[in-house]
Amino acid sequence: MNSPTSGHRPWPYPDPEEDADRGRTLADLGEFRLIDLITRGLPAHDQVELGPGDDAAIITSRGGRTLVSVDTLVEGVHFRRDWSGPLAIGRKAVAVNVADMEAMGATPIGLVLSFSAPGDLSVSWVRYLVQGVREEGERTGAALIGGDITSARDITIAITVLGDVGESGPVTRAGARPGELVALCGRVGWAAAGLAALSHGFRSPRAVVEAQQTPTPPYGQGRVAAEAGAGAMIDISDGLLADLGHIAERSGVSIDVHRAALGLPEPLEAVGKATGTDPAVFLLTGGEDHALAATFPAGPVPPGWTVIGTVGAADGQPAVTVDGAIWEGTTGYDHFH
Amino acid sequence: MNSPTSGHRPWPYPDPEEDADRGRTLADLGEFRLIDLITRGLPAHDQVELGPGDDAAIITSRGGRTLVSVDTLVEGVHFRRDWSGPLAIGRKAVAVNVADMEAMGATPIGLVLSFSAPGDLSVSWVRYLVQGVREEGERTGAALIGGDITSARDITIAITVLGDVGESGPVTRAGARPGELVALCGRVGWAAAGLAALSHGFRSPRAVVEAQQTPTPPYGQGRVAAEAGAGAMIDISDGLLADLGHIAERSGVSIDVHRAALGLPEPLEAVGKATGTDPAVFLLTGGEDHALAATFPAGPVPPGWTVIGTVGAADGQPAVTVDGAIWEGTTGYDHFH
Repeated sequence: MNSPTSGHRPWPYPDPEEDADRGRTLADLGEFRLIDLITRGLPAHDQVELGPGDDAAIITSRGGRTLVSVDTLVEGVHFRRDWSGPLAIGRKAVAVNVADMEAMGATPIGLVLSFSAPGDLSVSWVRYLVQGVREEGERTGAALIGGDITSARDITIAITVLGDVGESGPVTRAGARPGELVALCGRVGWAAAGLAALSHGFRSPRAVVEAQQTPTPPYGQGRVAAEAGAGAMIDISDGLLADLGHIAERSGVSIDVHRAALGLPEPLEAVGKATGTDPAVFLLTGGEDHALAATFPAGPVPPGWTVIGTVGAADGQPAVTVDGAIWEGTTGYDHFH
Repeated sequence: MNSPTSGHRPWPYPDPEEDADRGRTLADLGEFRLIDLITRGLPAHDQVELGPGDDAAIITSRGGRTLVSVDTLVEGVHFRRDWSGPLAIGRKAVAVNVADMEAMGATPIGLVLSFSAPGDLSVSWVRYLVQGVREEGERTGAALIGGDITSARDITIAITVLGDVGESGPVTRAGARPGELVALCGRVGWAAAGLAALSHGFRSPRAVVEAQQTPTPPYGQGRVAAEAGAGAMIDISDGLLADLGHIAERSGVSIDVHRAALGLPEPLEAVGKATGTDPAVFLLTGGEDHALAATFPAGPVPPGWTVIGTVGAADGQPAVTVDGAIWEGTTGYDHFH
C-alpha cells in the first residue's frame, strides 16, 4: 500500500482558528475560507503531482491505467446526523469508496470530494467531517486531491476515488469460473444489524452500531486476493446474495453459499432476538460492511479469508443459492424501491 | 481531440421501452433498471478499458498522468427545472466539467456521474438528462464510464471528469509571468445576463437565456493554448475578475484588464438596460460561460483568442485591475454568501 509522505503536521490540531469557529456556520465562513479549511496542510503523496487549488488535480498511475469509482452519501438516506457524528460519516464516505478499489485488487491514490450543504451547517461539523475524510484517507494511502463545494438543502457527500493496479490486477466481476471457491474477507451483516437496532431505538450492541456508523473494509486484502489469483471479486455493499448475484451474472456462472460457513456472531443473534428478525437476513442480505468476496481456484485461500461457497456452471439462468436452494425474500437494497 | 469509436447505435433512439416510460417515475423503474437506462449502448472509447458495471471503471492515460476534476449542479442552486429542460441541464453538467480539463490544456477521456434524485421524478426527465450528458460527452470526446445513483430530496448531479495531457501540458494557474499578455477565448457575461433576464421574468434575449441554460466552452482551445506556450490558464466559472484573481494569486503577479477589449455585445447591453444593470458587471463578474483565459508570451496569440489585458509584477499584494484601477464591487460568486 502506498503511503503519503510522513512528517507533515497533524491535522486539525493545533488550529489557531478552531476556537473562533465555535458557533459559526458555513454562511459565516464563506466558500473560499471553507475550501482553505478543508485543504490546509494536506500531506504530500508521491503519486500526486498536483493537489487541490487548480482547475484539476493530477495523479500519476503506475502502468498508465487509472481506476475510478464514485460513491455518494446523502443525509437522510445513507446517514442521519442524530445517529452518526461527522467524524464517523467522513470516515464512512472514504471507506465505502476505497472498498471499491480493494474490490478491483487496486491501490487507492486520490480522493475527490463533492460536498453540498446548507449554509446554516456549523463549521465545527464540517471540520470533523473533513477530519474523518482525511484520517480514513491516510489509513488507506489515499490523499485528498480536489473537490467542489456548493450550497444545498441537504448534506450530500460524493467521493470519487482514483487508484491503480499492479501487475496482477485488475480483478473484475466477470472472471469467476465453475469449480472455483467463493471466499469472504471481513464482516457481513453487522452494519445491517446496527441499522435494525438503531431503527428500533436501541443504541447497542455497540459493535453493530459502530459497524453501521463506520464500516471497516479489510484494507489491503484486495491486492492480496489479486496476487493469490482471484478470478472475480466484489465488495459487499448491497448484500452478500445481491453482490454475489452480480458476479454470477457478469461471469455467467452459478454460486452456492454455505450458510454454516458464515457462522452466527453473537451481536447479530442478539439484535435478531431483540427485533424479531432472522439473523440470517442480516448475514445474507445486509450491505454496508464492505467485506470483500472473491472467487479462487480450488485449494487454500489467503490467510484472513474464509471459504463460504462454490462456483458452478450456470444452469440456464445464473443464480445464487443458499445450501442449494433459492433464497426466499429480498437479496439486497434498491434505491427508489 | 480524442473521439469515441464511431459506428455505435444512436441513443436513445429507437428505444422500445420509451413509450412504456411515459408517466413512470424512478420509483416505478427501480435503481437497477435506471442504471441500465443510463448505460445502455454506450459507445466504445479507445482509452476506456472498462466502462460501467463493475466496482470501478478503468481508463488508460497517455504518459501515465491522469487529471481529475469534479463539478456539482444542485437543483435550486445551479439550475431550476422551470428555467431549463433536462437535456440542457445534462449538457451543462458535462460542459462545466470538461471546461476544467480545457483549462489545464488537457483532453477529456471519461465522465463519472453521481446522480441523486427523488423517487417521484419522471423517467422521461432522467432520459433527457442522460441524453444531454451523453451528447455533450460525445461532442467533447469524453465517455460516460461509471457512476452512482441514490435517492434524495433534491436533484444533484456531480460529474467527475478524467483526462490526460500531451507533451506540452499541463497548464496550471501558477505559470503567469510579468510581461505576458492575457487573452480570452469564448464568451463572458452572457450566462450572467441570461440569469438576470430570467430573474426579472424575461425569457429573452434568447441568446443569453440559452447561454445560461447551457454554456458553450471553446472545446479544443485549451490544447491549442497549451501548444502555443500559454503560461497560465483558467476557465471563467466564477467571473472574469475573480478567476483572473486566482491566476494572479497563484502566480504572484498582477493583471490589468482592458475594458474596451471586451467590447459590449448587443444582447448584454439590452439586458443591462431592461434590468437597470451596468453591462460591465456581466462582462467582468459574470461566471458560468466557461470561456478560457490564458497568459501568453508577448506577440501574436492563437486564432480565436483576443488579447484583453497584460500581466505585471505583483506590487505588494497580487491584484487584478481594470484599466489600471481597482474594480469597485463584487468580483464573482461565493457559495454560502
